[in-house]
Amino acid sequence: MPPAKEDAALPRKPRRTPGNRDDEEVFQPAWNFLGMPADRAAPERARAWVLPIPYEATTSYGAGTRDGPDAILAASRQVEQFDPEFGCEPAMRVGVHTLPALWPVFRSPEAMIDAIERAVHDILLGKPRPELLVVLGGEHSLSAGVARGLARATAPDDLVVVQIDAHADLREEYEGSRHSHACAAKRILEVCPVFQIGIRNISEGEERFRGTCRRVRTVFAEEATGSTGFLDDLARFVRGKRVYLTIDLDGLDPSIMPAVGTPEPGGLSWERVLDVARVVCRAAAGVPVFDVVELAPVPGLRAPDFLAAKLVFKIVALALLGPRAKRKGS
Amino acid sequence: MPPAKEDAALPRKPRRTPGNRDDEEVFQPAWNFLGMPADRAAPERARAWVLPIPYEATTSYGAGTRDGPDAILAASRQVEQFDPEFGCEPAMRVGVHTLPALWPVFRSPEAMIDAIERAVHDILLGKPRPELLVVLGGEHSLSAGVARGLARATAPDDLVVVQIDAHADLREEYEGSRHSHACAAKRILEVCPVFQIGIRNISEGEERFRGTCRRVRTVFAEEATGSTGFLDDLARFVRGKRVYLTIDLDGLDPSIMPAVGTPEPGGLSWERVLDVARVVCRAAAGVPVFDVVELAPVPGLRAPDFLAAKLVFKIVALALLGPRAKRKGS
Amino acid sequence: MPPAKEDAALPRKPRRTPGNRDDEEVFQPAWNFLGMPADRAAPERARAWVLPIPYEATTSYGAGTRDGPDAILAASRQVEQFDPEFGCEPAMRVGVHTLPALWPVFRSPEAMIDAIERAVHDILLGKPRPELLVVLGGEHSLSAGVARGLARATAPDDLVVVQIDAHADLREEYEGSRHSHACAAKRILEVCPVFQIGIRNISEGEERFRGTCRRVRTVFAEEATGSTGFLDDLARFVRGKRVYLTIDLDGLDPSIMPAVGTPEPGGLSWERVLDVARVVCRAAAGVPVFDVVELAPVPGLRAPDFLAAKLVFKIVALALLGPRAKRKGS
Amino acid sequence: MPPAKEDAALPRKPRRTPGNRDDEEVFQPAWNFLGMPADRAAPERARAWVLPIPYEATTSYGAGTRDGPDAILAASRQVEQFDPEFGCEPAMRVGVHTLPALWPVFRSPEAMIDAIERAVHDILLGKPRPELLVVLGGEHSLSAGVARGLARATAPDDLVVVQIDAHADLREEYEGSRHSHACAAKRILEVCPVFQIGIRNISEGEERFRGTCRRVRTVFAEEATGSTGFLDDLARFVRGKRVYLTIDLDGLDPSIMPAVGTPEPGGLSWERVLDVARVVCRAAAGVPVFDVVELAPVPGLRAPDFLAAKLVFKIVALALLGPRAKRKGS
Amino acid sequence: MPPAKEDAALPRKPRRTPGNRDDEEVFQPAWNFLGMPADRAAPERARAWVLPIPYEATTSYGAGTRDGPDAILAASRQVEQFDPEFGCEPAMRVGVHTLPALWPVFRSPEAMIDAIERAVHDILLGKPRPELLVVLGGEHSLSAGVARGLARATAPDDLVVVQIDAHADLREEYEGSRHSHACAAKRILEVCPVFQIGIRNISEGEERFRGTCRRVRTVFAEEATGSTGFLDDLARFVRGKRVYLTIDLDGLDPSIMPAVGTPEPGGLSWERVLDVARVVCRAAAGVPVFDVVELAPVPGLRAPDFLAAKLVFKIVALALLGPRAKRKGS
Amino acid sequence: MPPAKEDAALPRKPRRTPGNRDDEEVFQPAWNFLGMPADRAAPERARAWVLPIPYEATTSYGAGTRDGPDAILAASRQVEQFDPEFGCEPAMRVGVHTLPALWPVFRSPEAMIDAIERAVHDILLGKPRPELLVVLGGEHSLSAGVARGLARATAPDDLVVVQIDAHADLREEYEGSRHSHACAAKRILEVCPVFQIGIRNISEGEERFRGTCRRVRTVFAEEATGSTGFLDDLARFVRGKRVYLTIDLDGLDPSIMPAVGTPEPGGLSWERVLDVARVVCRAAAGVPVFDVVELAPVPGLRAPDFLAAKLVFKIVALALLGPRAKRKGS
Repeated sequence: MPPAKEDAALPRKPRRTPGNRDDEEVFQPAWNFLGMPADRAAPERARAWVLPIPYEATTSYGAGTRDGPDAILAASRQVEQFDPEFGCEPAMRVGVHTLPALWPVFRSPEAMIDAIERAVHDILLGKPRPELLVVLGGEHSLSAGVARGLARATAPDDLVVVQIDAHADLREEYEGSRHSHACAAKRILEVCPVFQIGIRNISEGEERFRGTCRRVRTVFAEEATGSTGFLDDLARFVRGKRVYLTIDLDGLDPSIMPAVGTPEPGGLSWERVLDVARVVCRAAAGVPVFDVVELAPVPGLRAPDFLAAKLVFKIVALALLGPRAKRKGS
Repeated sequence: MPPAKEDAALPRKPRRTPGNRDDEEVFQPAWNFLGMPADRAAPERARAWVLPIPYEATTSYGAGTRDGPDAILAASRQVEQFDPEFGCEPAMRVGVHTLPALWPVFRSPEAMIDAIERAVHDILLGKPRPELLVVLGGEHSLSAGVARGLARATAPDDLVVVQIDAHADLREEYEGSRHSHACAAKRILEVCPVFQIGIRNISEGEERFRGTCRRVRTVFAEEATGSTGFLDDLARFVRGKRVYLTIDLDGLDPSIMPAVGTPEPGGLSWERVLDVARVVCRAAAGVPVFDVVELAPVPGLRAPDFLAAKLVFKIVALALLGPRAKRKGS
Repeated sequence: MPPAKEDAALPRKPRRTPGNRDDEEVFQPAWNFLGMPADRAAPERARAWVLPIPYEATTSYGAGTRDGPDAILAASRQVEQFDPEFGCEPAMRVGVHTLPALWPVFRSPEAMIDAIERAVHDILLGKPRPELLVVLGGEHSLSAGVARGLARATAPDDLVVVQIDAHADLREEYEGSRHSHACAAKRILEVCPVFQIGIRNISEGEERFRGTCRRVRTVFAEEATGSTGFLDDLARFVRGKRVYLTIDLDGLDPSIMPAVGTPEPGGLSWERVLDVARVVCRAAAGVPVFDVVELAPVPGLRAPDFLAAKLVFKIVALALLGPRAKRKGS
Repeated sequence: MPPAKEDAALPRKPRRTPGNRDDEEVFQPAWNFLGMPADRAAPERARAWVLPIPYEATTSYGAGTRDGPDAILAASRQVEQFDPEFGCEPAMRVGVHTLPALWPVFRSPEAMIDAIERAVHDILLGKPRPELLVVLGGEHSLSAGVARGLARATAPDDLVVVQIDAHADLREEYEGSRHSHACAAKRILEVCPVFQIGIRNISEGEERFRGTCRRVRTVFAEEATGSTGFLDDLARFVRGKRVYLTIDLDGLDPSIMPAVGTPEPGGLSWERVLDVARVVCRAAAGVPVFDVVELAPVPGLRAPDFLAAKLVFKIVALALLGPRAKRKGS
Repeated sequence: MPPAKEDAALPRKPRRTPGNRDDEEVFQPAWNFLGMPADRAAPERARAWVLPIPYEATTSYGAGTRDGPDAILAASRQVEQFDPEFGCEPAMRVGVHTLPALWPVFRSPEAMIDAIERAVHDILLGKPRPELLVVLGGEHSLSAGVARGLARATAPDDLVVVQIDAHADLREEYEGSRHSHACAAKRILEVCPVFQIGIRNISEGEERFRGTCRRVRTVFAEEATGSTGFLDDLARFVRGKRVYLTIDLDGLDPSIMPAVGTPEPGGLSWERVLDVARVVCRAAAGVPVFDVVELAPVPGLRAPDFLAAKLVFKIVALALLGPRAKRKGS
Repeated sequence: MPPAKEDAALPRKPRRTPGNRDDEEVFQPAWNFLGMPADRAAPERARAWVLPIPYEATTSYGAGTRDGPDAILAASRQVEQFDPEFGCEPAMRVGVHTLPALWPVFRSPEAMIDAIERAVHDILLGKPRPELLVVLGGEHSLSAGVARGLARATAPDDLVVVQIDAHADLREEYEGSRHSHACAAKRILEVCPVFQIGIRNISEGEERFRGTCRRVRTVFAEEATGSTGFLDDLARFVRGKRVYLTIDLDGLDPSIMPAVGTPEPGGLSWERVLDVARVVCRAAAGVPVFDVVELAPVPGLRAPDFLAAKLVFKIVALALLGPRAKRKGS
């Protein structure tokens, strides 16, 4: 995107998003989340910032999450800006800035988690800074770095994490690393309590740990898909707290989200994931950060990428504008 | 398919469809929808004609709808002719003729829509002519040409359109063309009223227009998937009318129909789409035309192609034989 | 996998499965179902044996089932051993041995079915021998050979087959062979009665046959997906019988199982398939054999392979440990 | 393709091929090889007939050849009719008729080979009949049936076969069948001598057999790719003979033909294959039949399909019009 | 990429390209061609500008060129900046600015060509403006717009076009449009003479036209691949001229470039394409514009995208730094 | 593979490889390289051992090398055992044992390299132990561990490495790790001298280093593909030395090897790679280890996997049986 001063070099400059562009526009918006026009994507005015972390280093099966952020960005440009739930174009209203992607650091998973912690900390205390930081992964281990950065940048006392996931991710160590994707929740617990939803893969050790740890609450997939009862528990859990919502896409059902490393059957529907997001955004004191991780794009299949992009779009709107009463018919 | 007079040249000629072929058959049926045998596929005897329109010219994302008709034809050859809902082989009973594909015209979208209008008009007034014309797309903009051809060939007064779609398609113009796929419903409204089902992508301008236009009725996806209440409205809408049913496959849920340009989550199930078709075929005065459009085949994935082919098969049967009472168990 | 005596040649030997491996392990488990460690995979100690039959010879559309067994084995290595339903690692408890794959025999489908019959017979009467034989296909026609081998190895009087399938497979002959995949159930009926679940593709002749044959009971997909009423019938059908459960994966809904030759819409959910397995394993006198067939892997799409692997894992546990009361929340 | 008498039903009928179509044409040509217009595709006037045999039943690895004929037909519609080598549109000049595909027979490979033999025999002695029969496979075993049918229909004394292939295919039996794809040349040798080109996969037994059999001449890939010396031998071999040219596409180099079951490195270039075809068509007394077999389409990759289609197009021209002197520059 | 003034908001800012980045860099470069750092990508300092035109509207087979520019940009980020031929990092030296993509205009192909003409004209006369404009397609028809814009912006008298292509593209009209991809060279001839290289698909009409038109010189693929003799002609043709080099990627051999609509066998090698570029850049008076068009990415296959990106990289260097003497060994 | 003592449990046991199996065989060979029968695959008798290392942790683009070893093993089962160059079945003669895969260690790249070093050291000094160790990768960084293990297990004085690669891999550190795939050769140089062949991607820093380091000799791709002159240098380099040959598959040309992370155009042909292997195996004092790394399988494309498998097969034969005089014609 040519900065403002180069405008002279361009026949006419972009003003609106794809769906609504004026006839005079000649160039498409810059390469950013949702194809936002320059003025709404400027960091000074954007309340939400998107940080891509194309990091993948501890995956031994089903590679490809390093391509997740790019796939979400590409698909996001097809998301319609208007949302009937909000009766407006929420992203245009709040502004969304897209940061360049973090460089991966391969010295060790630890070094990378540290780098993420620093970057998140610096962003959250920077000037300007976002109200809402949206992280796109990348493998789930990165969430531990995000949680730490968030905790260090702000008072950690009222922080909680809500995790949508197929896997408990409560291992102390996995395949030689304490920062494996399979240890994500265990590392986050060192920062704050965690409410897990959609779990359907857990090891014996994790199950034992779960039974003794009061900081973690697990809603298995069977319960989460079968009824909405757990949403009240969730509301209680987040009430008055600042929430970091972390969504491992394998928490969703493989029918709508096959593009993950281990697509466990029996996962959450699109509507149930939005239920969770609405409860969090309504009941919590704030949602300063959320992430959507573990998208491993399937060549030729755009549906999962698009769903991930739309999910990010919805949560940005819910977090910054608040959930609305359900729209009535037509 | 060698015409009748060449039979001498062939050891033995095809007589039945794959599922039921006699042992003496040596050659497979000709390349046509459902692999119909020559006698049931002859235009003079076939009540339904299939017209492939592999046209795609205004798509800026998710290309591939030009390959949709061929993919549906190929998959249709695996559809079993017998249908327990009807207790017979409906297509064999009514006969299905497959026309060669329309040439695309690339002078302008307008020129192509005109060509479609002429072709549909000529087919519907030709001799022989079909009772039911089935159009396979191609991008959705072609439906405007079909609607025009239908209106010009027959009295347009009692015509209505029922549209299954994820997108409202009510834009006046899009990316420089009034005949973009995103304007399909807007162009059809110039011919007759429209009842939209499954919408979950609509722009601000379209939403405003919808609020002021009495000729369009929109059932959003949330309502259409959540209950069957809207089916009564639909029945009232089509009562006594001749219906052109236009199905943009992105109206279906991405879990069963990922092979579309923008696969919006939260769409219709297979059963709900059949509900719509059954209500239309039961309540309407007639269904002279329907289309299934926007299939963009995913390499290696046959399920969406097969679903589209079976959907066409079912609607042909429903439109010409009428819906049956629900089959009882086994 | 190096046999025990070569251990000296290896720095350290594998002891546990991926999810729980000790730090001292250097090598991964051998290439077998679930990546079982040597001691739990030894035929003498394993109660379940897995037999891959990568056979495909009568398929005229949607090839690829010959690659099914390998895909299931590969995916199975990612299945978590611990299962909350059982509160343990069921496969580690019962032991699972993986046989080398059967050679295909291409002299004729008949010859291959005979070879399967002999192999199954010999395995079931061998020493050691499995309590539960798990067959991975391959095309469905192989199930006739399995049924015969089972009947010949044991008293056939109390044998019944429960079939999950989209197709009735009741043809006497198809495309020139009585051992086509489309004749699987017809051939099995020559051995014992069959209870079919999920059928939504049946020919006129099959429907007629079904009406006159008292040995076959068909639950159409509509009934099987709409309610659980048929499960009582199923329980009665299997009560006191030894059951061979044969699962053609196209019985499942294409949304979760697109990797089959003809993915008919309107199929069973993951939960409903488990319901069937639970009823069978609870009510039957025994489940000496089950198969999972017709997986035709889609390049790049691992979700169906993983689902098939997990399905096998679950049924092994259900068959040998028995279904448990439903786990209560968290 | 609607037969001539239905023309009234069509607004305007197709007359020319894609590349040259008149403006008045509304419909595309029928579904046939090269998209030939009706008059040039009529069996009475077409000197070349194309017979698709989508047969695959003895393949234990790399499935998909049953989809080969359809893929070649689809790609052929994009082949430009004009050929500078001939200075004309050769297919339009000689006429090409496309037969419906042969039904596979799955009773046994033997039964299928017999069915092919009968079909080829009947076609070659039918009335009308082709000067040149072009067979599209399907697995290579079908060539034995073609050779038999050809020999039975015409005096076999002056028949020879020229085989382009990566594999010697000289096994007496393979995986239980004498009609495996790996036995193709062995079976053909029972009919006439064979000249093999491009071989780079041969078993010990085949190598021994080759050393003792005077009816087979093998040019290994190394020789065939390294120089053109073998072309003189080939010319001598075919001089005064009628030649059945059988092209297993794995004879070509995987760089241009990856879409085969076992893509052996070190194969023939496009130009070398044409060299062979030119020598055969120039030196032989006639080429009554040729086949192109073993295309196993790779999803998403059209280049191999297109190459196969163009290869068929070129050999039709070479066989019926004779090779031309090399075109001079521009 | 956050503009300079936001630097405060970022922990540390990007300075070098991937291959050579300093340890202090935290963020990756912005999304631009070659992942150029901000200072080398600024329009004021960049001698080369890249203009993506993801336009595709007249393609009836092998869709996907609209995804070409994005695929080239994505792959370019992996191209190593250092080039041994030049002994430096050429793009870093000359600077490369990436413009946002042009919006497609779907009113008609004519309208889009006009829009391209205007955009190119405005860019070439803008302030700042590039020395070299690099266009990424998109379908080949866009080159006519580029040629017109170039001619209008600068004196057209000394302009010539060098075209690498499999198709002559000399049709006056195709599928209803004078601006079809199949008419690209015909339209360009209205602006200036054309030297075509690699042609192996030409219609009868085009061949006739070619024979009578002195402004077009055609080097068929056979000649272009067989020897380098034509390079002298080419040098004469471009001597003293300003050259617009237009590369339809189907001019390359399908073995290295399968990702095109009609991958004709017998095309140019990587080295031969560079030979052409070197001759042009050495002999011509200047190369103000070049394009690389018709990349239709194949899902899962990155090699063609990478080759296209590297080709652009090489020609930028050749055009702005001039060809070097061949590097000597090691 | 059932150990010998279980034979009783199996109807008949596997004895020969696919291509030559006896009729009495019922089961396929165990899952090992080339599908070797039990007796030839036993570690005590096998002169060559294959060690899969599915390790990938420092790749930021083009993931998938962790799936390389499995893909090579799967494809190897289709490699014909007989090799005309040797006039025998070389692998059957020398015996090939396949070890289970190494577990990845994700603590840090350093920890993984250490683990590899230990494993290789222990294998080479074990009892039994292989004459030739074949490593299948995985990313190229693993070769440093192999080199260290080899040097520590045997006198390192006469060790040299021959590297086929597109990239110099001479970086001191890359993306935060000294054990990145981009540092492979730099790390190996710490053990012994390196002769690089096929390089066409090198950074400015690497080029500088290369100029000053006497232990590395670089043959750029241009030289390596253009003539065979460098083979004499290579012969001198390896004369009297023990050689570790490391083949990064991206050294090959993308036309035959597209399945790598960065497929640089202009690479080595199949024949040239074999030339290198032949020179090494003829001139060197011994080849105790070689590896084939960086295969990143492309879904649906088997040709690259098969080529890699056949390459391993050929080098095993060359290393243990020695190169033969070129086979003479037929």
